[in-house]
Amino acid sequence: MEICEKISKILSDVKCKKPLVHNITNYVTVNDCANIILALGASPVMADDIEEVEEMVSISSALVINVGTLNYRTIESMIKAGKKANEIGIPVILDPVGIGTTTLRTKTVERLINKVKFSVIRGNMSEIKILAGIDAKIKGVDSEDTTKGAKKIARELALKLNSVIAITGEKDTISDGNRVCTIENGHKMLAEVTGTGCMTTALIGAFCGVSQDYYLAAVSGIASMGIAGEKAYRSLEENQGVGTFRVRIFDNIYNLKDDDFIEGGKIYEC
Amino acid sequence: MEICEKISKILSDVKCKKPLVHNITNYVTVNDCANIILALGASPVMADDIEEVEEMVSISSALVINVGTLNYRTIESMIKAGKKANEIGIPVILDPVGIGTTTLRTKTVERLINKVKFSVIRGNMSEIKILAGIDAKIKGVDSEDTTKGAKKIARELALKLNSVIAITGEKDTISDGNRVCTIENGHKMLAEVTGTGCMTTALIGAFCGVSQDYYLAAVSGIASMGIAGEKAYRSLEENQGVGTFRVRIFDNIYNLKDDDFIEGGKIYEC
Amino acid sequence: MEICEKISKILSDVKCKKPLVHNITNYVTVNDCANIILALGASPVMADDIEEVEEMVSISSALVINVGTLNYRTIESMIKAGKKANEIGIPVILDPVGIGTTTLRTKTVERLINKVKFSVIRGNMSEIKILAGIDAKIKGVDSEDTTKGAKKIARELALKLNSVIAITGEKDTISDGNRVCTIENGHKMLAEVTGTGCMTTALIGAFCGVSQDYYLAAVSGIASMGIAGEKAYRSLEENQGVGTFRVRIFDNIYNLKDDDFIEGGKIYEC
Repeated sequence: MEICEKISKILSDVKCKKPLVHNITNYVTVNDCANIILALGASPVMADDIEEVEEMVSISSALVINVGTLNYRTIESMIKAGKKANEIGIPVILDPVGIGTTTLRTKTVERLINKVKFSVIRGNMSEIKILAGIDAKIKGVDSEDTTKGAKKIARELALKLNSVIAITGEKDTISDGNRVCTIENGHKMLAEVTGTGCMTTALIGAFCGVSQDYYLAAVSGIASMGIAGEKAYRSLEENQGVGTFRVRIFDNIYNLKDDDFIEGGKIYEC
Repeated sequence: MEICEKISKILSDVKCKKPLVHNITNYVTVNDCANIILALGASPVMADDIEEVEEMVSISSALVINVGTLNYRTIESMIKAGKKANEIGIPVILDPVGIGTTTLRTKTVERLINKVKFSVIRGNMSEIKILAGIDAKIKGVDSEDTTKGAKKIARELALKLNSVIAITGEKDTISDGNRVCTIENGHKMLAEVTGTGCMTTALIGAFCGVSQDYYLAAVSGIASMGIAGEKAYRSLEENQGVGTFRVRIFDNIYNLKDDDFIEGGKIYEC
Repeated sequence: MEICEKISKILSDVKCKKPLVHNITNYVTVNDCANIILALGASPVMADDIEEVEEMVSISSALVINVGTLNYRTIESMIKAGKKANEIGIPVILDPVGIGTTTLRTKTVERLINKVKFSVIRGNMSEIKILAGIDAKIKGVDSEDTTKGAKKIARELALKLNSVIAITGEKDTISDGNRVCTIENGHKMLAEVTGTGCMTTALIGAFCGVSQDYYLAAVSGIASMGIAGEKAYRSLEENQGVGTFRVRIFDNIYNLKDDDFIEGGKIYEC
């Protein structure tokens, strides 16, 4: 079965099973993450008090940890929730937003990786390079980098961390250590709206909630956002811009159909 | 006077008096709550530090407490604010988001109900059943349930807690212990956008800010969201979805007119 | 060079240099602030843990402090970040949301002003009057006031605090103590959407990130929002309202062009 057909299949599973996705995320894009999970057909829940995260994890199908606006209170909740998720065997997805920009972020992601087994880690090239121990020139949390060498980095880090590594940017690279693919869907306007990275990670969480092939789930989440972004851009009329584009992202995730992947998916495995 | 005419009247009062509605709410839907209160014609304020909540309550016309992303810091602020609101005689509205999913949520709502007198409590059937002490199968915070027996539950819990109880879902049921009604406005797409429940509670808060008939205020808030949802759905064109729908909810709350209730209100008292 | 031509120039600089703007802001409008900074062409970052704010300031071109949902944790972060910004010489912009409504807000803004040198302070008339020590009748955070005497207040407070003072409302008044101007762009619907004040402050932060003339940067931010608001309103069709208007604000900030200022700017220096 071609990968695009597999994606169609797990999209159907998401809509049918409506997995509950627990998010410990940042307050900048949390509303977008909840809405994109709903738009895909899954069910979001946000809870970050240390007293309740374990119980919330226990009724969830996936846990997404995003360090975008981490603080000493939520860091401990992230670790506790992640450990519980490992214990009960649900996938944990990490978005290491801004790792490398501050010591707190870098140390926190290190602590998380040491204490929690992640099924998928999604970041931009700068963030993944920091994770991989390669110096990267960083500018805030919207860093860009060439995709040169991305496959090598993704594959090696995947093996090292025993996790699917997803590097998103102009082109996206995903590897589980064995398999590796490049996705060429998307539109550059996605970088001009806050939270499209966080939302992609949230979508991966939703797909992980129904598939134990986390590589496929990561590819599905990233391809979904890419295709929705392309369609959102194509729908824009004169004088419209990022405001309308952002609204259309939700419309297009909501309306994703099998054909969108089979006809429009630019996913190249190698 | 028919109930729909009464709603038209208090909608005018909201637009005229612009009551200040203090919200201690969650960080997922807080922006939506502020915007929906403004769209209706009232004025929102959000403040949750324990040092300032009493003063903020003192200049407000209603207080809305939503436990959607409660934490140990904000729980104490909710209690302090609620007590102050009771003391000065302004209505307090509770949204027990996700009660029953974690011990923290259940215990916190119990504490709140023991320490604060609520004018209105709005939740979905699962949440209200937990409050009423009836077991409910719960799935995150978007639980659904049959509306069977809703009137009985609402009426009995209203008498027990001396509070208006509003159960929202496919059909909505509202009771103050004596009066009870069912609202059949709304559209199922409302469940596919995060925060429509929180926003409904915020609207109830705005209506409570100008009317001492909290049953009527609850009916008004729920009918407003239902009618706005219907009109938002009807306005959708091909290829549009939850993104555009969400924008149109705000448009339609903003443009609510007397006739919307009188001609479109499906409110059945019994 | 006319002021509108100068604004066109620094708008180009923003789009070219993409300054990183660090925001310690409220959780109500934080997503809007990030998106409006991106829409203008700059790069936002939000970080508020006391352990990381100094490092984040160190890689930023401007710091925006907004006390909209302050709490004891973030207040200390604001002060630490502000001091660091002063030390390294990047501009700090203050939005004293709701000063005068609670003692905590008033005392916190006093502390901030005593410990941090602000390049620009933007508020509505009620907020600025409180800052200036003049009594003002306050209603939540959406206070309005006559603009009568605004120039005098702005000029005198600017001299006293050695900061650009920007008073926004139906008409806007900006002064650095020497220069003073009035802006008559904007539309009253801007007051019916939450966060348009916060977003204006965020835009000022982006402009301050590329210009050392903070008076010009403040004028640029306010004129940008005013012009975008006018165009957003003009684009509305029947049955549309604040929901669509809000989306169009982002579209119009994104599409701002030189001509918008040169042909549409209503900026009167005196």
